[in-house]
Amino acid sequence: MKASVILAHPYQQSLNHAFFHRICATLCAKSVTVFGHDLYKENFNPLLTAEELEKKKSSDKLVIQYVGELLDSNVLFFIHPNWWGQPPAILTGYINRVIRAPYAFEFPPGDKGVGIPTGKLTDKYGVVINTSNTEKTREETVFNDPLEHIWMKCILEYCGISKHYRKTFRIVANSTLEERLQWLDEVEDIVVNSINCCDGGGV
Amino acid sequence: MKASVILAHPYQQSLNHAFFHRICATLCAKSVTVFGHDLYKENFNPLLTAEELEKKKSSDKLVIQYVGELLDSNVLFFIHPNWWGQPPAILTGYINRVIRAPYAFEFPPGDKGVGIPTGKLTDKYGVVINTSNTEKTREETVFNDPLEHIWMKCILEYCGISKHYRKTFRIVANSTLEERLQWLDEVEDIVVNSINCCDGGGV
Repeated sequence: MKASVILAHPYQQSLNHAFFHRICATLCAKSVTVFGHDLYKENFNPLLTAEELEKKKSSDKLVIQYVGELLDSNVLFFIHPNWWGQPPAILTGYINRVIRAPYAFEFPPGDKGVGIPTGKLTDKYGVVINTSNTEKTREETVFNDPLEHIWMKCILEYCGISKHYRKTFRIVANSTLEERLQWLDEVEDIVVNSINCCDGGGV
Repeated sequence: MKASVILAHPYQQSLNHAFFHRICATLCAKSVTVFGHDLYKENFNPLLTAEELEKKKSSDKLVIQYVGELLDSNVLFFIHPNWWGQPPAILTGYINRVIRAPYAFEFPPGDKGVGIPTGKLTDKYGVVINTSNTEKTREETVFNDPLEHIWMKCILEYCGISKHYRKTFRIVANSTLEERLQWLDEVEDIVVNSINCCDGGGV
């Protein structure tokens, strides 16, 4: 089994980084091959170019590597804070450049992008781990929780990933050490469940 | 009267660019001072740094300039395609780095970011112009149109901008020249209405 673990947070001591490390360590302990990427640390360039827009191909080595690993993975983990109802720009750029046609989805022959594409990542399980400083009720009623729809509908299900899970940890800004340690344990449980799902067990 | 006009599209011949040029030209013809920025052309760096996260200040000259213009503007125009229910990464980065506390919003003294902030852009009018290849019904029912909530709720109203307007032009991929020319005229009407709104007239 293989997993891509994608992290987007600029601060090396962040809770997001702690989640990233716990996810990678848990996967390794379960003998899962891990493609772990701290996008900031790897200086990933998030800007889709005019050439990529046209040809739908990239000459960026990092993009090519990430695409290969994405296709090769059974489980995909995305870890990031909720900034303005979106991932940080560096992860938005990963989505723009890596999750592309014809690898992740494909339009029917001759279609210029108007129709409904076929998702091509149907064999994968998608997990999104978010951090937030907004109360759940306020996020859902005032802001409509755009990240839920972006990840579940616009990205994962669009690409054919019907098995997915998202968890938001909140409120980070005034959390205690005990809470954060408990959240790390919860993240470990999520990883174990994901592996079981891919093995055909669990939910 | 002054206006910031922010464009995010990698292809210089794009319809988004045509919208950008028409908006700037219409504003100029109405004697509005225009701060127009093609983010790709200006090589804007969309990555919020750990230092900016910590200090909430930036040493990036372009960020400092954009912030000053944002505060100085009566009307704000954002022009971009709908990519995965989000703006392109370069504009997500503008939002991350330019629309920041304490300029655009501010938490009460002593608040670590947990409470509800005060929006500080209350005197401005916000306009969002999008392009899309997805039918309106599908966008709204399948994807929940995340851009509507991101722009109107998470960004503009969060910063105190209660007067705003958003228009999505679709379907771009199979549009005719006549349609696109008509869309440009519609964009011009939107600009004129925005100016009237700022003058106290219009809707």
